[in-house]
Amino acid sequence: MSKIAAVVEKNSDVLREAVAANQQRGFYAHWPEAPSGKIYGETANADGQAAFQARINSVFEDISADGAEDSFGEEESPFGFPLEISYPVFSEDTLITRANGAWKEWRSLSVEERASILIETLERAAAHFFEIAYATMHTTGQGFVMAFQASGPHAFDRGLEAIAQGYSQISAFSPKVDWTKRVGREEYVTVHKTFNIVPRGINLVVGCSTFPTWNSTPGIFAGLVTGNPVLVKPHPGAVLPIAILVASMRGTLRDLGLNPDIVQLASDSSRDPLALRLATNPNVKIIDYTGGTEFGSLLEKVAAENGKAIFSEKSGVNSAILDSVDNLDRVLDNLAFGAVLYSGQMCTAPQNFFINRNGVREGDAVVPYEEVVERLAAKIKQLATHPKIGAGTLGALQSVATLERLTQLSEHPHDARIRLESEIVEQPGFPAARSRTPLLLEVAADKADVYGKELFGPIYFVIPTDSFEHSLELVTASIKEHGALTSAVYSCDASQRALAEEKVVFEAAAPIAFNYVGNIWVNQSASFSDFHGAGANAAGTATFTDAAFVSNRYNVIGTREIR
Amino acid sequence: MSKIAAVVEKNSDVLREAVAANQQRGFYAHWPEAPSGKIYGETANADGQAAFQARINSVFEDISADGAEDSFGEEESPFGFPLEISYPVFSEDTLITRANGAWKEWRSLSVEERASILIETLERAAAHFFEIAYATMHTTGQGFVMAFQASGPHAFDRGLEAIAQGYSQISAFSPKVDWTKRVGREEYVTVHKTFNIVPRGINLVVGCSTFPTWNSTPGIFAGLVTGNPVLVKPHPGAVLPIAILVASMRGTLRDLGLNPDIVQLASDSSRDPLALRLATNPNVKIIDYTGGTEFGSLLEKVAAENGKAIFSEKSGVNSAILDSVDNLDRVLDNLAFGAVLYSGQMCTAPQNFFINRNGVREGDAVVPYEEVVERLAAKIKQLATHPKIGAGTLGALQSVATLERLTQLSEHPHDARIRLESEIVEQPGFPAARSRTPLLLEVAADKADVYGKELFGPIYFVIPTDSFEHSLELVTASIKEHGALTSAVYSCDASQRALAEEKVVFEAAAPIAFNYVGNIWVNQSASFSDFHGAGANAAGTATFTDAAFVSNRYNVIGTREIR
Repeated sequence: MSKIAAVVEKNSDVLREAVAANQQRGFYAHWPEAPSGKIYGETANADGQAAFQARINSVFEDISADGAEDSFGEEESPFGFPLEISYPVFSEDTLITRANGAWKEWRSLSVEERASILIETLERAAAHFFEIAYATMHTTGQGFVMAFQASGPHAFDRGLEAIAQGYSQISAFSPKVDWTKRVGREEYVTVHKTFNIVPRGINLVVGCSTFPTWNSTPGIFAGLVTGNPVLVKPHPGAVLPIAILVASMRGTLRDLGLNPDIVQLASDSSRDPLALRLATNPNVKIIDYTGGTEFGSLLEKVAAENGKAIFSEKSGVNSAILDSVDNLDRVLDNLAFGAVLYSGQMCTAPQNFFINRNGVREGDAVVPYEEVVERLAAKIKQLATHPKIGAGTLGALQSVATLERLTQLSEHPHDARIRLESEIVEQPGFPAARSRTPLLLEVAADKADVYGKELFGPIYFVIPTDSFEHSLELVTASIKEHGALTSAVYSCDASQRALAEEKVVFEAAAPIAFNYVGNIWVNQSASFSDFHGAGANAAGTATFTDAAFVSNRYNVIGTREIR
Repeated sequence: MSKIAAVVEKNSDVLREAVAANQQRGFYAHWPEAPSGKIYGETANADGQAAFQARINSVFEDISADGAEDSFGEEESPFGFPLEISYPVFSEDTLITRANGAWKEWRSLSVEERASILIETLERAAAHFFEIAYATMHTTGQGFVMAFQASGPHAFDRGLEAIAQGYSQISAFSPKVDWTKRVGREEYVTVHKTFNIVPRGINLVVGCSTFPTWNSTPGIFAGLVTGNPVLVKPHPGAVLPIAILVASMRGTLRDLGLNPDIVQLASDSSRDPLALRLATNPNVKIIDYTGGTEFGSLLEKVAAENGKAIFSEKSGVNSAILDSVDNLDRVLDNLAFGAVLYSGQMCTAPQNFFINRNGVREGDAVVPYEEVVERLAAKIKQLATHPKIGAGTLGALQSVATLERLTQLSEHPHDARIRLESEIVEQPGFPAARSRTPLLLEVAADKADVYGKELFGPIYFVIPTDSFEHSLELVTASIKEHGALTSAVYSCDASQRALAEEKVVFEAAAPIAFNYVGNIWVNQSASFSDFHGAGANAAGTATFTDAAFVSNRYNVIGTREIR
């Protein structure tokens, strides 16, 4: 049996399970999310940490520098030290030529072969989960557990989800058929038809600094499973996590006798950025992007003007409405955790809390607005400064710009009033960590110029409103203008929830989480279940992983033959 | 049982069959293509003709003029008489307001209900097949049989195909799920999730003058099945065929207790065109377009700049390569029929014949180039002037512009040499018909400025080339520059065919028909089997009916709830 046939056989159950999970959309995870020695091996953590340590102050040699123009790296740990890792930097020409060189072999494989090979790349790369976790922690600032889950099991599950979706779409119809039509009383004509999957071309995946693997695996694997070469262009501040994955994938491909250049690392530097040059290259036909709105909108324009497909996730402003609850304490616990978790640096975290100024109904009672705000502030503070779990939940601030924004708003809140000061948090073992507790501001509902834009990081607003309907109106308007990836609504009134669904989901096109309490947060997006990114509002065009996310990466073009 | 539930039950077999046909892609047709009394009733033809006659010189009353701004019509039969039918003309505001008014009811139906209702609209409208055939004949110039097939059974099958594709995509995953995750040793959390299909918004379908129903039904039914309101904007020269369908659909919807405004006729006039105004309206989120490249490219630009989905079919230049054959007579018969059929006014008809100047190999012999051209010209002439089938196969020229183009090229062929003159053809019963036999020109391979653009109508070029590879190079370059909807290649050499597939299908992104002979022509595109329109080259972005054709018309946006 060939190596590829063996991989097809080996991974057929996983592929089948992932396809079924996409259909059923209940809980499914191929890789366990707990960073546990019992699951991943008792030495896995220590080994991963050692592997990460060995990367520091060295050349990243897992990707050959053959043909590189330069060697460069500028990563710094938000926990307070430079990584001093340098990566090979290839020219645009080299990357494109190599991608095209690997293309024909790759697109000539069947979709089942491509899917199975890609699953194999993930299975083998999963051996690096702990190393990727430390790499993620020290580029993004995430606490270790989140870094492990988000960049390891969750990111890989999102990749597997995209593989399965691509496989389902392409195998939904017969690839060949003998088409026979009666064309006369006793006369038939038979046409031998082949329905070719024609991939569009090179797929550029531009990563972000906060979720360097989670936000990139969907595009990488959707692009590859549909037959396109992929260029992975990481954020210069968060290269290592995805570099480890790409290097591992290339090793697996090579081991299977395939050209590894079907997936390449397009590392660059902030002084000589590569993303726009690659995006405008005529060979690049598909762009995946996660990051800020300004550059994302430029890439969308480039794509629109040149007939390229684009799947973007830009900034949005997420909101929560607090109106009536069963148990206010549980609700505030939930909101506070969401606010502390990774210091608000998740694209899914709510920034604005719209709270009824007449108070929040709790069962038969009404808790006054002032008390709600005070209790929310107290819970945020308590969690963020908790000696055991505070620092790990907060993590550190990925970029200096976020710290500056936080400092500036703390010093000059303008029309807003500070309800909770941001404080320095000590990260054990990392005295120079860029770590702060959240800043909670209060601002009037008519000051949308203050709270209406995305203020990335641990910056939150409480906004008193006249009523549920008033809150809903403000949230709907905000999504229509700025987009959103999530929204949270707390209401015990079914008719209010129906109205929220009508306005937020159907008019403004953002998802809603109703009445979240307990160990589940609106920030979370579950692979194989939650469609992440509405794809329909100003926050971006991508949805992980709907049919459009894969079906726009290829065309079906027929060959018909009379024999 | 409600009327809608009854329709769901009644049409479930058809829906199931159509879904299976899309998967299997063998021959399938729900409506028989023969305009036969045995199938459609002995009086169907006479009744249809009478119904069409009764339309002439009257107001089209099947669509209420309530709220109309004007009543207007300018259709003329290419067979030589004005139709004098006037249609209600509604303002942009009226159309948009009514579409939005009908939207919520429609999108609140399940996809199975929408699909079943839409099948019902087609089943009932099929009673108008003969009337639609006469309407098509006397707006497009098609001969009766083609008019019947293309605007009736084939167009309806394309509509059914789109319904089934939309249904398959949306029902590919569970619409609701209780998602349960273990979050602690003995702790579980359950989230009640709904995956809402959120249609993008009003779907404008801009029709063309030559295939007013066939090219519009895919967009109309893809838009509707995915929950969007549809505005059908016909070409002012070919309103009646699609007006009959839209009016019938509205009657069925009304009969089922639904708001008929979910599908509206947006008739206009050439002096006050509505298409661009509607396309730029912010409520319009999806555009389907068939027609010339210039306006199509403008609509694509409008769509790209405003984040609208567009599915276009513009002009292309289709080519045939003639290099080696089993039986030259059968090949030339096939090519001649394709050239005569509807006077080359099919978007799928080849315009340019690239023929090896060293002759065409037939078995062991080589037929000299000159002889091939002479025999092709003779066969075209013989068929086009055939006393029994010539006039009916040719039909008439839809537009005066096509006749002018033909006349001008006949009088001033410039660098080309006339190999077959175009002659007037008499259409029995229609002395003023605009009907002509094809013009065949010969031009050198380096005169791409002459043959390289689309010259719509019965205008064909033979182009002598140095070799198969030379022909292929010219065809590939032409598709890359101008796009194409089809290509035909005649070669008995498997390695040449493989090379053609590589160049034409994978590089230039156009389909190929190899070695077509007998009662099947490259012009034809079979519903449920052939993916029509590559969607990947300059001829347009639409493919009837692939996954992207439906999945870009809605988003999946979740509602999650903790109870």
